[in-house]
Amino acid sequence: MRFCKGHGTENDFIVLPDYEGELDAPLVRALCDRHAGIGADGVLRVVPRDAHYFMDYYNADGSTAEICGNGIRVFARYLVAAELCPPGEMYIDTRSGARRVIVPADGGDITVDMGPPSRLDDAEVCIGTSSWKAVGWSMANPHLVVLDAAPIDALDLSFPPVVDPAAAYPDGVNIELVEPVGSGHLRMRVHERGVGETRSCGSGVCAAAIAVMDAVGERSTYIVDVPGGRLAVTWREDGDVHLIGPAVLVAAGEVDPSVIHSYRH
Amino acid sequence: MRFCKGHGTENDFIVLPDYEGELDAPLVRALCDRHAGIGADGVLRVVPRDAHYFMDYYNADGSTAEICGNGIRVFARYLVAAELCPPGEMYIDTRSGARRVIVPADGGDITVDMGPPSRLDDAEVCIGTSSWKAVGWSMANPHLVVLDAAPIDALDLSFPPVVDPAAAYPDGVNIELVEPVGSGHLRMRVHERGVGETRSCGSGVCAAAIAVMDAVGERSTYIVDVPGGRLAVTWREDGDVHLIGPAVLVAAGEVDPSVIHSYRH
Repeated sequence: MRFCKGHGTENDFIVLPDYEGELDAPLVRALCDRHAGIGADGVLRVVPRDAHYFMDYYNADGSTAEICGNGIRVFARYLVAAELCPPGEMYIDTRSGARRVIVPADGGDITVDMGPPSRLDDAEVCIGTSSWKAVGWSMANPHLVVLDAAPIDALDLSFPPVVDPAAAYPDGVNIELVEPVGSGHLRMRVHERGVGETRSCGSGVCAAAIAVMDAVGERSTYIVDVPGGRLAVTWREDGDVHLIGPAVLVAAGEVDPSVIHSYRH
Repeated sequence: MRFCKGHGTENDFIVLPDYEGELDAPLVRALCDRHAGIGADGVLRVVPRDAHYFMDYYNADGSTAEICGNGIRVFARYLVAAELCPPGEMYIDTRSGARRVIVPADGGDITVDMGPPSRLDDAEVCIGTSSWKAVGWSMANPHLVVLDAAPIDALDLSFPPVVDPAAAYPDGVNIELVEPVGSGHLRMRVHERGVGETRSCGSGVCAAAIAVMDAVGERSTYIVDVPGGRLAVTWREDGDVHLIGPAVLVAAGEVDPSVIHSYRH
């Protein structure tokens, strides 16, 4: 099974370009196991579909997800590096529809049109003895954004934050903990449902930035620093959110699914 | 740069078969970074030397180490898989001398002659508010073994245990926390100097088993369960310690050192 490993702001993925077998949850978990497998936050299977490519995306726990703003940049970088698509503008199919992506030929930052956000229910987010009101935003997937959880470095995200009422998000929710830095600049940490804390989450970065812009009452561009690096988010007048950031392909090779599949999981 | 990734009881390594450049600490750290690199507990560079191969071993933090009982099995499995050595008995050079290794042709458990142990200074090991007397043993590298730290699952190894007196091990020490299971059977957790808690440590497994055998006053064979799997240790009448366990090659391919090297570190 051929694979490529890459990351966007240290949110890392295994790209499977030509695996046609069934990609079941145990195999995804085995591939993403950081000691017995290759190790990653998720798997991106490349599926040719009509004139485009479908990003068949799985979280490390084997669950599927609608979209991943960092994963789609890694996926787009792979399509160009493997000469499946020319650089420039392209469309990538995801579980939440086709996304427009711009991949510069020089390897620079990639822009993804993440579509328009929509409001979701607000809820309370609790970590240990701290709790905050959080605003709900959908970027195709659900997010709860705490607009100011400073100092975020002190938070314990080794366990999932508690959402109250839990019934507001029966399928789980991604949680962003924001700390304002300055004008048009914030930093955040994120807890992804089904994964745990990650070094970055593209749709979460978008949700955090638009939540802050919405609270301020002005659409603009924000720099968002996450533990894994730096991204930029623009909320355009047409309503769409653009996510701009790096994507790096680190290694490529072959993996023996029978070896890792049999070990555990 | 070609690489292979494998693990022994989930102690995982990047094997570099033909990298002739300088393998400096920043590059080792970049390769072992689990998000921005490939990810591993260490790097094993394959260096042809006379009739044998030298295992040029680095911890994930870029420091060198004398030997790694799990790493040498992965290294030996690689030599056979790459047809650099036939299966059966072979000698592998390490920073602590040549080691005899037996690699079955059928892919079964690999036996490593880890040489004779020697006694080191005892000391106290402290984790949080708990402390125990620990016995010092060298398996070419230094170990402090707590003979009974049950229940070990409750211990917090996210920080290095404190050694008292610290001056006893100025270069650091690996720490094994043992829980007796039954006759000839124990389980343990390990904190490796320069790495942190790992899912297994081959020389630590040997040190733990011989420390228990020495306390009991009889040389024999012990099964040792670690978080990453199961190993066996035999303390032979000739004084040598044999470590027997699995080794699995998971993936192979190419990595671009300039990409990961430039990212951080």
